[in-house]
Amino acid sequence: MAETIFSRIIAGDIPCYRVYEDDRVLAFLDINPLSRGHTLIVPKEAAETLDQLSDESAAAIGRCLPRIARAVLAATGATSYNVLQNNGAAAHQAVAHVHFHLIPKQGDGAGLGMVWRPTDLPAAEGEKLAREVAEKIAD
Amino acid sequence: MAETIFSRIIAGDIPCYRVYEDDRVLAFLDINPLSRGHTLIVPKEAAETLDQLSDESAAAIGRCLPRIARAVLAATGATSYNVLQNNGAAAHQAVAHVHFHLIPKQGDGAGLGMVWRPTDLPAAEGEKLAREVAEKIAD
Repeated sequence: MAETIFSRIIAGDIPCYRVYEDDRVLAFLDINPLSRGHTLIVPKEAAETLDQLSDESAAAIGRCLPRIARAVLAATGATSYNVLQNNGAAAHQAVAHVHFHLIPKQGDGAGLGMVWRPTDLPAAEGEKLAREVAEKIAD
Repeated sequence: MAETIFSRIIAGDIPCYRVYEDDRVLAFLDINPLSRGHTLIVPKEAAETLDQLSDESAAAIGRCLPRIARAVLAATGATSYNVLQNNGAAAHQAVAHVHFHLIPKQGDGAGLGMVWRPTDLPAAEGEKLAREVAEKIAD
């Protein structure tokens, strides 16, 4: 996989504002934060998108998220926050190494803005699509 | 914790379009999808926000995300997607039970829309805040 700014941070070639590290995970402050406390949680394993990441690295990230969230809330005073993980340029992924954003919603409104345009799921489509996804998981 | 639509789905009182289940996790199609394949991944453990969830449930969700992502991409033909987890009404949380959205970005543009307004992180603030968060994690 090509080198990215995150692989260089993990390798120690570029400094970061580190908040957490274990065998599989590194977390540090985003230097272009959407709000105070905006934190990036990245696997040390090189994978471009989440679907390419090992179960073990994905579990390790999941495991540390509650702890990091509690600490960011405590340090910043925020009470609401979003966790966001983007895959592919069309989905706003800017660095080709898996990363989870933890973005506090601050009292001044700073944080992640969303455009939410829900649709409906007709029963026939829901049943068919759920079966197709379930079969792919079972493969 | 109060009953929610998700706790009732987990209990089997309300049906869902299930795509995946294990001891700790249930995943099913969102009935108000932002795009085709929009899937919800929820812990069976009752917790309102991610910071209140056990490490074990959070790890279990992390572990199944790559697998579910691969299956949703395969079933829908999408190649980009967002994973989103909202905590608190101010951060767009609508059901008071932890849930991760997996939202494909479809070719017609359907999916999660975002408003991204990055700021800067001055070095003094970065060093101070990272230290504060790291100390809270170590507590």
